[in-house]
Amino acid sequence: MEINIERLYKDVEDLGKIGFEENVGVTRLSYSSEYDKGVDLVRNLMESAGLKTYIDPVGNLIGRLEGKSDKAISIGSHLDSVPAGGIFDGTLGVLAGIECVRVLQENGYKNHHPIEVIGFTEEEGNVVGGTFGSKCFTGVPIEESSIPKMEQHGLDMNSVNMARRDPEKYKCYLELHIEQGGVLDNTTTPIGVVNGIVGITRYRATVNGMANHAGSTPMNLRDDALVKTCKMITRLMEIAHLKDEEITCTVGQMTVLPGAVNVIPGKVEFIIELRGKSISANEEIIEQFYEEFRNEGLILKNILSQKETVLDERIIKTIEDCCKEMNIAYRKMYSGAGHDAINMALFTPSAMMFIPSIGGISHSIVEKSLPKDIAIGCQLLLNSIVKLDK
Amino acid sequence: MEINIERLYKDVEDLGKIGFEENVGVTRLSYSSEYDKGVDLVRNLMESAGLKTYIDPVGNLIGRLEGKSDKAISIGSHLDSVPAGGIFDGTLGVLAGIECVRVLQENGYKNHHPIEVIGFTEEEGNVVGGTFGSKCFTGVPIEESSIPKMEQHGLDMNSVNMARRDPEKYKCYLELHIEQGGVLDNTTTPIGVVNGIVGITRYRATVNGMANHAGSTPMNLRDDALVKTCKMITRLMEIAHLKDEEITCTVGQMTVLPGAVNVIPGKVEFIIELRGKSISANEEIIEQFYEEFRNEGLILKNILSQKETVLDERIIKTIEDCCKEMNIAYRKMYSGAGHDAINMALFTPSAMMFIPSIGGISHSIVEKSLPKDIAIGCQLLLNSIVKLDK
Repeated sequence: MEINIERLYKDVEDLGKIGFEENVGVTRLSYSSEYDKGVDLVRNLMESAGLKTYIDPVGNLIGRLEGKSDKAISIGSHLDSVPAGGIFDGTLGVLAGIECVRVLQENGYKNHHPIEVIGFTEEEGNVVGGTFGSKCFTGVPIEESSIPKMEQHGLDMNSVNMARRDPEKYKCYLELHIEQGGVLDNTTTPIGVVNGIVGITRYRATVNGMANHAGSTPMNLRDDALVKTCKMITRLMEIAHLKDEEITCTVGQMTVLPGAVNVIPGKVEFIIELRGKSISANEEIIEQFYEEFRNEGLILKNILSQKETVLDERIIKTIEDCCKEMNIAYRKMYSGAGHDAINMALFTPSAMMFIPSIGGISHSIVEKSLPKDIAIGCQLLLNSIVKLDK
Repeated sequence: MEINIERLYKDVEDLGKIGFEENVGVTRLSYSSEYDKGVDLVRNLMESAGLKTYIDPVGNLIGRLEGKSDKAISIGSHLDSVPAGGIFDGTLGVLAGIECVRVLQENGYKNHHPIEVIGFTEEEGNVVGGTFGSKCFTGVPIEESSIPKMEQHGLDMNSVNMARRDPEKYKCYLELHIEQGGVLDNTTTPIGVVNGIVGITRYRATVNGMANHAGSTPMNLRDDALVKTCKMITRLMEIAHLKDEEITCTVGQMTVLPGAVNVIPGKVEFIIELRGKSISANEEIIEQFYEEFRNEGLILKNILSQKETVLDERIIKTIEDCCKEMNIAYRKMYSGAGHDAINMALFTPSAMMFIPSIGGISHSIVEKSLPKDIAIGCQLLLNSIVKLDK
């Protein structure tokens, strides 16, 4: 059974026109009229593929093909975009799922397990909160801060509770997604088999020094908070690298105070973000960093600990076996970005597959994945479904 | 002849009450009613000391004691303060000059040269522009940007031109000032004999990298503008230190862009300020810095080159001789901050003397110099006047 890349790529392009603005990108935020138009298009595709469709109380779109077993194989991703985003992020996983069902149907395949293709809503979190749709679907508690935003769109806790599904009715979850990073593109590897989704640790760092006149304070009498910070950040990157080459460490925000050209910085504030296979490894890096600089005016405060997601080893093995049978190169890797699979993994055995993002760029109008890579990804998804259905 | 420290310290305290606010400090900005009250007090002290007083068209207060020669020894500093400043900055040099005249008169000293005590206006530059009063006095061109501000206070270019004095009528200029830095206090040295005032060089630096997703971009595929900047600033400090231990190098302003916790910095902008004995030495540091990092996304743009001031060697020698005769320790040093002596040095042979600032703090309510140090400074000023008068 072979997937039809022309048909699939046309679906991606058609959906990508909804909310698209020239030189800007796609803006299809959940609970907007653009989003509803996108859902209409995808729902029609699902119905044409023979799926029975349903929109749950929070807006997730579900298309279901019945089977003999009572445990469904679910396939999905999200249908919303960031503001000014690309046309592949999220949509690919849903549309590829539909393509797989079309191919199965065309070939007269009799599935043992029901197959559900899910288009989650509000993964990007620009309206209510990140991965809101899959949180509701799986019963993962939503953030307090989401409640007033939900209410603005006519949703309440009743909608949230009604959207919750029974995990006993699911066998597994598969998500095909663009990598959104440059590892596959950089190493010309067509497939990433995702081991897990990184844990995220964030700390607010404050480095105290002594503000003083930049002209009349000689270098040896200074306690320059920025000069100290520069050494600390350089060393932090070394500590993280020595701990684990795959951990990412980012300082994306910094404020230098008082912030005058002729005043020695008295205080620097910045945010450290670590993403790695386990938040305990992240914490070890922070501990060592603090130990080395605690006597130099460094203060650290934890502001986020988002636990890592470990995906299902048996499904990963199945996907790897499919790659070998298809004779395609793959790379086992962690996802540095969050996905609906974080919630689905707490609900049913889950796995993810990545295809290359050209230049590693995503959340942008220039986000691009090649038809040949999409074809490999969708074929792998199809073969994995069949193997898991056995 | 000995100066009277009780009398002088009382004058400093009395003037320090004008514009003083509890827990805030002294605010005596030029062209304010507080400033005028301060001038009245100082003018009365001058008259009582036997000086003939005059306020020039831009607001400089001049008290003159005639002598046989037509070349005056001028002594001065400024009478304005920064907002929420201290009571010693500027005022000390004017009040100590008056004290010296009082002592000369009390002792029946017959001065050969006329003696002028000058209270310059608007040195701090919060109203019209830095060292505005002494610029007008000496004929140093004022900044274009000062003109509309001047006009708000009823001044025009005619006032500026009328304030200009004839350098032929001056023998020299002496300025006693608090150090405003911590070198003397830190080394328990009572006197700083000032060699010159540093040249100031400022550059706007831009470091370009590539903004990208902090989760999905592994460390080896990053071009993190902040990580590069940290290494550059650490190295810049080394280059400056190796070039000249007395140069000060400050990065007081920095902006990290785009400035999101989960986005790798794509651009960092900061201002480099170098202050040293010559702006050509500052430029050499910048050249080496640029040479080392030009291929790493560093762009530099000069935004200020304020030439150094070299003070008069013969007067410096006279002051040193007085220190030796008085058996007091002194340190030859550069001033890292600007003073009216920058303009006066272009007009007449000039020199400056510093006394310690406790903790190196100035421009603050906690600015403090001890009576014993003020006494040494004023006595040195008196002895220098007498030696220069010979």
